[in-house]
Amino acid sequence: MSQWKQIQQLEIRLLEHVDYLYDDNFPMDIRQGLSSWIETQDWDTAANEESMAGVLFTNLLSQLDRVRSQEQNFLQRHNMKIIQQQLQVKYTSNPTVMARVISTCLREERRILSSACMQEQVCRLSLRGKVPPVPS
Amino acid sequence: MSQWKQIQQLEIRLLEHVDYLYDDNFPMDIRQGLSSWIETQDWDTAANEESMAGVLFTNLLSQLDRVRSQEQNFLQRHNMKIIQQQLQVKYTSNPTVMARVISTCLREERRILSSACMQEQVCRLSLRGKVPPVPS
Repeated sequence: MSQWKQIQQLEIRLLEHVDYLYDDNFPMDIRQGLSSWIETQDWDTAANEESMAGVLFTNLLSQLDRVRSQEQNFLQRHNMKIIQQQLQVKYTSNPTVMARVISTCLREERRILSSACMQEQVCRLSLRGKVPPVPS
Repeated sequence: MSQWKQIQQLEIRLLEHVDYLYDDNFPMDIRQGLSSWIETQDWDTAANEESMAGVLFTNLLSQLDRVRSQEQNFLQRHNMKIIQQQLQVKYTSNPTVMARVISTCLREERRILSSACMQEQVCRLSLRGKVPPVPS
């Protein structure tokens, strides 16, 4: 299951942490629309390599072009166009900044997922301690 | 039928004109999410009356709160929150500017709809001129 799909299964309290990760710097529409592609790129390396960041930025714009051309909904197509324009203004001359933003978001998502997983384990263990074994 | 519903039935060439009307100053998500409410407010008067514009701005934020609290989709709820924050930054001290933007968008939509209607009539008349009457 993709990281983004796991995120969407979190309880509301943890989803609120994810909510704070996303703004104009990395719109959530992109995270959702290109989730699989985003998760298979090396943003950590690109955050420190200008040329690689440039390639990833160009590829991200192409991916958005593809998604936009297939989108039937007028509002979604319009939003995708606005986001593309905003990203071009923001990152054309600073693709490493974009790579850093995406790398940070993905890492924070993993941290939130891992914390949710830990809490679930602690919860299970504490339940085991409290509930007496079922008599056989 | 609401103005916004009529807009969505336009052919793609005219929809592109509508597309250019909307940006961060008046996000299309709001136009769609609050279409009925928006079309029943007097933005023309508010554009020239600070106090009325202030009331409409507060009401618009309340309407967005209502829509956001009912929204089940995580991405849509997040987008609605971002838009509310952007509007607050942009218009809290300039509500007449917001009223002017909305008033202009609605007027331009009516102009586009009216032009589409005219073209349709011209098209029908020219067709009538070309096609001979069906023999009885």
